[in-house]
Amino acid sequence: MTKAKYVYTFGNRQAEGNAEMKDLLGGKGANLAEMSRIGIPVPPGFTITTEACVQYNKIGKEEILSLIKGEVEEAVKYVEEIMGTSFGTNDNPCLLSVRSGAKASMPGMMDTVLNLGMNDDAVKGLIAKTGNERFAWDSYRRFIHMYADVVMGLKPETREDQDPFEEILEDLKEKKGVEKDIDLTAEDFKQLVTQYKKIVKERLGRDFPTDPYEQLWGSIIAVFDSWNNPRATYYRKLNNIPAEWGTAVNVQAMVFGNMGKNSATGVGFTRDAATGENVFNGEYLIDAQGEDVVAGTRTPQQITREGSLRWARLAGVPEETRKEEYPSLEECMPELYNELYEIQDKLEQHYKDMQDLEFTIQEGKLWLLQTRNGKRTGAAMVKIAIDMHKEGLIDEPTAVLRCTPARLDELLHPVFDNNALQNSQVIAKGLPASPGAATGQIVFFAEDAEKWHAQGNDVLLVRVETSPEDLKGMNLARGILTARGGMTSHAAVVARGMGKCCVSGAGKLQINYREKTVTVDGKVYREGDWLSLNGTTGNVYEGKIPTIDPKLTGSFGELMELTDKFARMHVRTNADTPNDSGVARNFGAKGIGLCRTEHMFFEGDRISLMRQMILADDEKGRRKALEKLLPVQRSDFEGIFEAMQDLPVTVRLLDPPLHEFVPHEEANQEEMAKEMGVSPEHVKNRVNSLHEFNPMLGHRGCRLGNTYPEITEMQARAIIEAAMNLKKKNIKAIPEIMIPLTGTVEEMEMQERIVRSTAQEVFEAYGDTIEYLVGTMIEVPRACLTADKIAGAAEFFSFGTNDLTQMTYGYSRDDAGPFLEVYLREGILRDDPFQVLDQEGVGQLVDMGVQRGRKAKKDLKIGICGEHGGEPSSVEFCHRVGMDYVSCSPYRVPVARLAAAHAAIKDMV
Amino acid sequence: MTKAKYVYTFGNRQAEGNAEMKDLLGGKGANLAEMSRIGIPVPPGFTITTEACVQYNKIGKEEILSLIKGEVEEAVKYVEEIMGTSFGTNDNPCLLSVRSGAKASMPGMMDTVLNLGMNDDAVKGLIAKTGNERFAWDSYRRFIHMYADVVMGLKPETREDQDPFEEILEDLKEKKGVEKDIDLTAEDFKQLVTQYKKIVKERLGRDFPTDPYEQLWGSIIAVFDSWNNPRATYYRKLNNIPAEWGTAVNVQAMVFGNMGKNSATGVGFTRDAATGENVFNGEYLIDAQGEDVVAGTRTPQQITREGSLRWARLAGVPEETRKEEYPSLEECMPELYNELYEIQDKLEQHYKDMQDLEFTIQEGKLWLLQTRNGKRTGAAMVKIAIDMHKEGLIDEPTAVLRCTPARLDELLHPVFDNNALQNSQVIAKGLPASPGAATGQIVFFAEDAEKWHAQGNDVLLVRVETSPEDLKGMNLARGILTARGGMTSHAAVVARGMGKCCVSGAGKLQINYREKTVTVDGKVYREGDWLSLNGTTGNVYEGKIPTIDPKLTGSFGELMELTDKFARMHVRTNADTPNDSGVARNFGAKGIGLCRTEHMFFEGDRISLMRQMILADDEKGRRKALEKLLPVQRSDFEGIFEAMQDLPVTVRLLDPPLHEFVPHEEANQEEMAKEMGVSPEHVKNRVNSLHEFNPMLGHRGCRLGNTYPEITEMQARAIIEAAMNLKKKNIKAIPEIMIPLTGTVEEMEMQERIVRSTAQEVFEAYGDTIEYLVGTMIEVPRACLTADKIAGAAEFFSFGTNDLTQMTYGYSRDDAGPFLEVYLREGILRDDPFQVLDQEGVGQLVDMGVQRGRKAKKDLKIGICGEHGGEPSSVEFCHRVGMDYVSCSPYRVPVARLAAAHAAIKDMV
Repeated sequence: MTKAKYVYTFGNRQAEGNAEMKDLLGGKGANLAEMSRIGIPVPPGFTITTEACVQYNKIGKEEILSLIKGEVEEAVKYVEEIMGTSFGTNDNPCLLSVRSGAKASMPGMMDTVLNLGMNDDAVKGLIAKTGNERFAWDSYRRFIHMYADVVMGLKPETREDQDPFEEILEDLKEKKGVEKDIDLTAEDFKQLVTQYKKIVKERLGRDFPTDPYEQLWGSIIAVFDSWNNPRATYYRKLNNIPAEWGTAVNVQAMVFGNMGKNSATGVGFTRDAATGENVFNGEYLIDAQGEDVVAGTRTPQQITREGSLRWARLAGVPEETRKEEYPSLEECMPELYNELYEIQDKLEQHYKDMQDLEFTIQEGKLWLLQTRNGKRTGAAMVKIAIDMHKEGLIDEPTAVLRCTPARLDELLHPVFDNNALQNSQVIAKGLPASPGAATGQIVFFAEDAEKWHAQGNDVLLVRVETSPEDLKGMNLARGILTARGGMTSHAAVVARGMGKCCVSGAGKLQINYREKTVTVDGKVYREGDWLSLNGTTGNVYEGKIPTIDPKLTGSFGELMELTDKFARMHVRTNADTPNDSGVARNFGAKGIGLCRTEHMFFEGDRISLMRQMILADDEKGRRKALEKLLPVQRSDFEGIFEAMQDLPVTVRLLDPPLHEFVPHEEANQEEMAKEMGVSPEHVKNRVNSLHEFNPMLGHRGCRLGNTYPEITEMQARAIIEAAMNLKKKNIKAIPEIMIPLTGTVEEMEMQERIVRSTAQEVFEAYGDTIEYLVGTMIEVPRACLTADKIAGAAEFFSFGTNDLTQMTYGYSRDDAGPFLEVYLREGILRDDPFQVLDQEGVGQLVDMGVQRGRKAKKDLKIGICGEHGGEPSSVEFCHRVGMDYVSCSPYRVPVARLAAAHAAIKDMV
Repeated sequence: MTKAKYVYTFGNRQAEGNAEMKDLLGGKGANLAEMSRIGIPVPPGFTITTEACVQYNKIGKEEILSLIKGEVEEAVKYVEEIMGTSFGTNDNPCLLSVRSGAKASMPGMMDTVLNLGMNDDAVKGLIAKTGNERFAWDSYRRFIHMYADVVMGLKPETREDQDPFEEILEDLKEKKGVEKDIDLTAEDFKQLVTQYKKIVKERLGRDFPTDPYEQLWGSIIAVFDSWNNPRATYYRKLNNIPAEWGTAVNVQAMVFGNMGKNSATGVGFTRDAATGENVFNGEYLIDAQGEDVVAGTRTPQQITREGSLRWARLAGVPEETRKEEYPSLEECMPELYNELYEIQDKLEQHYKDMQDLEFTIQEGKLWLLQTRNGKRTGAAMVKIAIDMHKEGLIDEPTAVLRCTPARLDELLHPVFDNNALQNSQVIAKGLPASPGAATGQIVFFAEDAEKWHAQGNDVLLVRVETSPEDLKGMNLARGILTARGGMTSHAAVVARGMGKCCVSGAGKLQINYREKTVTVDGKVYREGDWLSLNGTTGNVYEGKIPTIDPKLTGSFGELMELTDKFARMHVRTNADTPNDSGVARNFGAKGIGLCRTEHMFFEGDRISLMRQMILADDEKGRRKALEKLLPVQRSDFEGIFEAMQDLPVTVRLLDPPLHEFVPHEEANQEEMAKEMGVSPEHVKNRVNSLHEFNPMLGHRGCRLGNTYPEITEMQARAIIEAAMNLKKKNIKAIPEIMIPLTGTVEEMEMQERIVRSTAQEVFEAYGDTIEYLVGTMIEVPRACLTADKIAGAAEFFSFGTNDLTQMTYGYSRDDAGPFLEVYLREGILRDDPFQVLDQEGVGQLVDMGVQRGRKAKKDLKIGICGEHGGEPSSVEFCHRVGMDYVSCSPYRVPVARLAAAHAAIKDMV
């Protein structure tokens, strides 16, 4: 075995490693080396390589230690020298942290030891140095607890047992009659140290190690071992991280911000994480530890003077007080501030992203503990990406990739006023079915929504679940709240389509339609009471909370322009009305990918005509009703085609089972009977005969159009006539007629024949023609399997991945709730397949459908129109399999455009 | 272009072609040549090759005629010589038939011309020769009609128009005041000839051709043309026959059996088509045409003396009368009979199968017109195959292939007494859901079936549709009749499993449960009235019709033994009771491939325990109920394992959605509530919460076992304990535990864990172990797509092609009726995919599942347990994809064994 180099030091603005060495030093190790190398003052330390870990797993503890011992001891000396400390002595003791660090980030999966090097000597040295006895003893007892647990394996024996150290601590607090650790004194901690050591001896039969090197060897091995703990193993399996990689071990000098008035600790952001503005900002505290800044026990101070002034203004703190009690770092320690300012600038320039950094000032010396890309709001995300591109920091593809598609949602919907939100109480939680915030007076019926809205009120529609009959009321409401139904329930799907806030399946709600009340945890809310909904989180609040409308800033528009520069796929929209079409077009939709015709049949008189058609005894009766529906449909299409002028509109022919349209209640049946001049018994019988055990798999889709060809005829006629009428007005319509639920090429051929011969008749009557396409939804597994055949009769495919997912898994969207919940919880499923396309299973069928379809017809136009068309990872999948476009609800269009650009950029090598 | 040989003659016991030349001469031409070549006296003639047809399509009429003219004229001379006739003259005129004959049989698709050569001279010659003026003129006018139609294209102008020749004929009959052709005289036909010629001239502007060669050329081209008529083109497309093949044209001398007392015509069978007995038999008539034998206007005579004697005995004809009026050919024309006998023997020896032959005796000379393999009953099919093998005529594989699997059904079920059937009236028709015949008194409720049966009555259970609660009554009934439901409705599936006759979906029936009546076409049948059902045809008869039980003859057993010699796949059975298991074992089942456990929960107290389990509030309550179910299940398994001793038994864990078990009627809910000590409201709410929109795609299969693991635990325990208990009694059980509806490997892993840990517990308690397997149904498309993964956690796969078909097509079996009917009628589907496995679509998934499963686990055991496991073409498919076994209902086991043998034999090169 050749002797490799196992230890890489860093510190003193230099390093043996660098950012490229993630394989060998792990992510954290490489990053610490890089920071040090570019001149950032990080506490010195060293990284033991991942190779050492790999070797350890082969040759064991004694052998690996003999291999690395010399190098580690050298490295410790290097640290001692830089810090001027000495390991394990009472004279300025050197305390170390020992942390894992694999190539890929595995947050919290492996073990860490802090304050290593502490013993009865070192604690004295720490007291001498800090003058803080309590802090020193507390650090010592914490170290014993952590080390005994992580390294020595002193854990509770069963799950029911209490941690022995916690037990001792609790006993002490009880004895002293105090509740919190903060009420304990230096003496108390000192006593704990003694007791802790005792229990270690009792339980493990050996003394707690006082030799700092023994502590160090134990910790290094413990970190190696933690690579294979069950938690880490499971995480690796989930994230496809190979077990062979191993972890590196980072050993680093501890620094303390609580060593007196010339010490401090804080966090900073290189830009504003809320707005994206390019201003350095952050908070700090003098003579404090990192946790004090976030704990809320002391009020943190602002780093910059400008930030401090603004804070005071908002908090109503007079300038005198501010200057006295809450001065900025810029004012307090101007030199250190300048150093920090330069560092933050350097870091951002180096990492080319907004940084979130942690620093500590120990006795007048600034140390950077960590830097990482900072979390930010959706708005800040977009602004920072675009700004950085303009500043020349990043190129266009990088700017696009910096924006996470899913987070665009935040920019597109109203949000609650944050100040008002703080006083509001969450009374229930449902599913975040459609994003945004809404506040309004509750009503329980769609008709009531209309009434209240007409009187100028903002309303929320509260239902057990919604049905197509509620459409108008839903449209007028500010938001929708349901007690039942999942992310793909009627309410959820429709609301997303409308871009309207919706919380679905809030199981706690007990709705009483008769009384028009909803009861939550015993409290009754009546019609007219105010509630508020957050469709992004699923929270339901009591009372009225003001909302703020989104502003589509300049950066947003610039980002969208950039996406078009890169995306190969177009984005279309799913829209059934001229209004939705317009919204989508404004968001950049390049056409309609799914215009459902059935929604058109629910409003007003239409439902009655539709029912007459369905309840007719024979073809003649159906034709009579269809004749009356024809002008209605035609004018619908004229409206949509006009809104989408010059862009293609994919119209799906009638899809749902007919029983969805007929009246199920006796009174309605009687009314219907009267209208049609038949007996109520007759209506009832016909309605009953339409009952299906599994309507999802029943008489619907093209099965309707093939058994009642006159329906397809009427719809084809309405579409073509609408386009012809617009042509007369010089408006160009590009209809694409889509046959739903095709499973065999014969089904498609029959539908195609009907559509084409109808179109021919219309052309002859008008003495003119237009261009149009005939294609099909691919949503039945068999259609994917026989896509080569079906392509022979279709000019385009549109994957209906909602139904395809239902049939491929054998899950009914409407019924899957109870077991999906368990499956997601137990990890049987990683994602809800109705939200995130299942690439492993359903994706195989989609890929097959695309490849086979194109093999048979090279220029087959292919898209997707399921819910997945607006889900970023699914959009990227669609790009990879070679689709031409995705189609999604209007408010998802920007998200899909960005995801499509991501996919294309990732595709560029 | 090289000059090819286009015409091949045959006749005079020799021929230029032979049976191997089907490509060139077509099937019929090659066969005529072959017969002639082996010394059979066929009327002489010649075949114009398929190549000529192909050439014709390239080069056109004039060119092809110039190519073949010389050869055809030579061949006509050859025919004239052999027959001593002369083409188109009044001196013993030569009349010819012209028929198509492609390589593959295309019955009725192309055109034929008879009596060609007829003209004003020939008709006189025919009169002179036959002395039958009426026959001669009738032949003439028929020839004109046929030729004008087929060759000259004189057809009705629109679909509504009448055929002009028919019109003239009808006019004549009207004028003469007669109704039938038989009432017309020679003079009438002569007049028709004149009128027919006139209308040809009028309509086509040219004379009817009198030149026999002109007639011949026209006919040959017409037959060529008919290869491309729409009917033939469609048939070719359906049967995958290439258009490039072309058809041959067979021209053959006409012979007449009606030329006086020394002429005759008849049909013969080389063996008994009903019983398979090896005796020559058949019927004939003196001085008659072929159609007279089958027309029923004269009583046909038997060919053999023995046959004649038996006929007389059955018909009650005294020997004197028989000898006088109905003598056998053997008695009448002993020499010709001997010649015929030798010919039939020679033909059977040559074709090595039972022959159905047509012959004509023209003026003392015997002509064979046709021989073909004879149709026969199922019983005859088996006996003839086995006998011929024993006689050394055919080898074992051929004997097996001679038996069509589907036709074994006839041997396994009761049939109606044919004599009694003739007086019975079909009152309705349903689907042939489960084969056999049954007669009984009708009842409308399962309980009534039990009551009437207890009183010693044979009953038929008549229901709108059946449900699991009717099981016991169904079992006691002779047959089942339903008004709704398809071939895979509950009634159909269960009845096939029981081997019980069932007619389903007889839509005409109006059932009134309150009155206990069923009304058909206005006639009311009440409880206790007799009806009879034919489950093989779907016919429903009024009244009582005696049935005859099947006899499994020696040949049947011998055939079954032969199948085992060849089949690679085993056949298992789907059985849930010891009784069914025994039946299947007797039929040669090699184990149980599907034992459904849910049926066990419906009887007696069990349903109540099951309901308590389902309605329990929490796991504790469920466990309490499951504890009580455990001994019940265990003893069920003991019974089945014992019946299947030493053979594997695949037990499927609970599959159906829970709502199938709970009471839906208020009274039952109240009872349940009382039993459980809870409020009726509570029961009602729980029942309602189990409602699903699409239960087929809902909370069922392993989704139950994964959300309520205690159910899987109980069932696994019952199975393993049952096997252990039998082991104590030295009975070997081989349980294979099957997880239903797996869609992801994670689902399977979780179930496997539960089963294995439960088994381990039982083993420890018993201090002993047994062998068992854990595997899964593959019935969800996603399971096929990810079969490689799932195989990692499964020891066997069993394809549940019922559900797989439902999900792959998106068809609900229970709801597909209305559109399936249309789809089958319109040719959108060729077969009902629930009966015949859809190899094009569903089959791809099955194949994928097998290949991927085996790739991951080489020795994975694979079978099928859907309805398709007993359908011959599907069984062959299962063999081809490499399955180890098929499983089907007990009465389908012999069918499947035979089909499996077929598959294996076809696989041998």
